[in-house]
Amino acid sequence: MTIHYLDDLAPGQCFKGNTRARVEENAIKAFASEFDPQPFHLDNEAARESLFGSLAASGWHTASMTMRLLVDCELKLAGGIIGAGFDELRWPLPVRPGDELRVELEVLEVRPSKSRPSQGLVKLRTTTLNQNDQAVQISVGSLVVQRRPEH
Amino acid sequence: MTIHYLDDLAPGQCFKGNTRARVEENAIKAFASEFDPQPFHLDNEAARESLFGSLAASGWHTASMTMRLLVDCELKLAGGIIGAGFDELRWPLPVRPGDELRVELEVLEVRPSKSRPSQGLVKLRTTTLNQNDQAVQISVGSLVVQRRPEH
Repeated sequence: MTIHYLDDLAPGQCFKGNTRARVEENAIKAFASEFDPQPFHLDNEAARESLFGSLAASGWHTASMTMRLLVDCELKLAGGIIGAGFDELRWPLPVRPGDELRVELEVLEVRPSKSRPSQGLVKLRTTTLNQNDQAVQISVGSLVVQRRPEH
Repeated sequence: MTIHYLDDLAPGQCFKGNTRARVEENAIKAFASEFDPQPFHLDNEAARESLFGSLAASGWHTASMTMRLLVDCELKLAGGIIGAGFDELRWPLPVRPGDELRVELEVLEVRPSKSRPSQGLVKLRTTTLNQNDQAVQISVGSLVVQRRPEH
């Protein structure tokens, strides 16, 4: 496993997830009942009458599953994955029971910190894709990443 | 319970959560072990050595708890709370075991849809505060909201 320091990253680099996550109907309902108890995330009948047309995962469930895929992906950041904030987060398509999700990452910007010379910020676009290669979540966010100790 | 249609909303309106959510240490660790298994969200010792200084909730856990506080808040949107996307999402301070979270909302923009006359978008700033009235999450996002049927 290669640890990536800020100094190893450059705009245009792409990374992929090593795993796929299968989304089970009961996991959609369990997450929703704890964090997003709305009919279209909990009940198949009610979802049919809603904007979603059928049962859909909470966007926060999709975001949380994406985080798990990131932790397990080939990009291993020095200091861990620590989000400083997002400029964009959207869900172009709902996540459905039976979907299999994976992530793709692109480095957009690398910015050493002036005030904290041991770290910096990396801006990443993270795309979460389903088994049909359709994007179900797109985010652009900045992560705090450590510099190589010799710097 | 008053249902808010798009037509009832205007920039500058503020809404509050009706509930507070207490964040338990075991809930932080349970969420993290499923969705964000990094040492600073799982293990008190390891967190002490990290950027966080002590055990901190995953940002996605904070976002998910915020969603639950929104579902339970005084703003009841026609059609439910359906996020179209975020322009901003950040975590100014970590959430710690024992914190008690609540939400405050401000309507920033109301935009009827041209292509779908029965709905529109509402841009909201949602601030999640801890028991010391410090912001632990700030988001600016757009929700799909139904118009009054007579329109």
